[in-house]
Amino acid sequence: MPYVNIKITKEGATPEQKQQLIEGVTDLLVKVLNKNRATTIVVIEEIDTDSWGIGGVPVTEIRKKNK
Amino acid sequence: MPYVNIKITKEGATPEQKQQLIEGVTDLLVKVLNKNRATTIVVIEEIDTDSWGIGGVPVTEIRKKNK
Amino acid sequence: MPYVNIKITKEGATPEQKQQLIEGVTDLLVKVLNKNRATTIVVIEEIDTDSWGIGGVPVTEIRKKNK
Amino acid sequence: MPYVNIKITKEGATPEQKQQLIEGVTDLLVKVLNKNRATTIVVIEEIDTDSWGIGGVPVTEIRKKNK
Amino acid sequence: MPYVNIKITKEGATPEQKQQLIEGVTDLLVKVLNKNRATTIVVIEEIDTDSWGIGGVPVTEIRKKNK
Amino acid sequence: MPYVNIKITKEGATPEQKQQLIEGVTDLLVKVLNKNRATTIVVIEEIDTDSWGIGGVPVTEIRKKNK
Repeated sequence: MPYVNIKITKEGATPEQKQQLIEGVTDLLVKVLNKNRATTIVVIEEIDTDSWGIGGVPVTEIRKKNK
Repeated sequence: MPYVNIKITKEGATPEQKQQLIEGVTDLLVKVLNKNRATTIVVIEEIDTDSWGIGGVPVTEIRKKNK
Repeated sequence: MPYVNIKITKEGATPEQKQQLIEGVTDLLVKVLNKNRATTIVVIEEIDTDSWGIGGVPVTEIRKKNK
Repeated sequence: MPYVNIKITKEGATPEQKQQLIEGVTDLLVKVLNKNRATTIVVIEEIDTDSWGIGGVPVTEIRKKNK
Repeated sequence: MPYVNIKITKEGATPEQKQQLIEGVTDLLVKVLNKNRATTIVVIEEIDTDSWGIGGVPVTEIRKKNK
Repeated sequence: MPYVNIKITKEGATPEQKQQLIEGVTDLLVKVLNKNRATTIVVIEEIDTDSWGIGGVPVTEIRKKNK
């Protein structure tokens, strides 16, 4: 039943890490809300760092400052 | 008026198929809810199969098992 | 597999109309892309007319002008 | 950094259960991807069962059949 | 053309404030990207504070601590 | 606090233009609703023109007609 959408910046998440997120979030929904595992969908979307802003600043710029 | 977002796995949907989805969904909203065709927006987003999980398993893994 | 999100203004869509949208969109995805009906999810969200803007104007105001 | 949107049907999730989901998903993103906890946002949206369709059938109807 | 979705906590935003957001965001897209005002859609969604988590904590709890 | 998602067609928006959108939308939310700048997230997603339909027609086709 549940649909979970995870948006993260495109900074090298591996297929294995994505699998861990998919498993972990699905387990959580089954455990906490007793949801039907078979129809639980988790979608991960990776966004370019110049298309993601925090506090009005693109992450690309935040990363430059933190170097 | 309506905004429709269709998320599918990235598995070769052609421009023609996407056009069929756009037309079909728009027609449905006009027919069922009498919505204004001119401002009906349909957006299709294609997601990598390792970023889409069903039942806690990435579609990439599901596809491997089904081979 | 597919996840479809339909956003419309909250202007009296009935359960029957929503069922027609759910059926119609699901049928379309099965027909056009041969998707798995059992894991196709369609979610309809209804938004207050003062929270929906077209061309910079809330729908509430558009409706007033059109009376 | 991450933004997580959880859509579930409106079937009585309590504030305590939502807090468990918020904590669990945030912990998972920190653990798996080492994300910044302070800017991790988790939003839960609850949808009426006649506005959520699986396999072309509204959940309201699915629930009736399962009684 | 553009579709903008603004999610905020449900903490008393007035219709006038929402109209300011709709106008402001639409003007920005026209000015910066020369988009077509007539088909620019802005949707505002208000979320209960116990359904919105930051840093793993529901906003309801954050508000209590800040009192 | 707020999460803003801006969907536009993939037609050459530059990093500088995206930065202008991120700054402008964040400033607007701080000014109009007095939101916390530090946890305001703006995400821009660019969609292929054959995956974006207006009035039942993919933007790719609209662009061809307007040439």
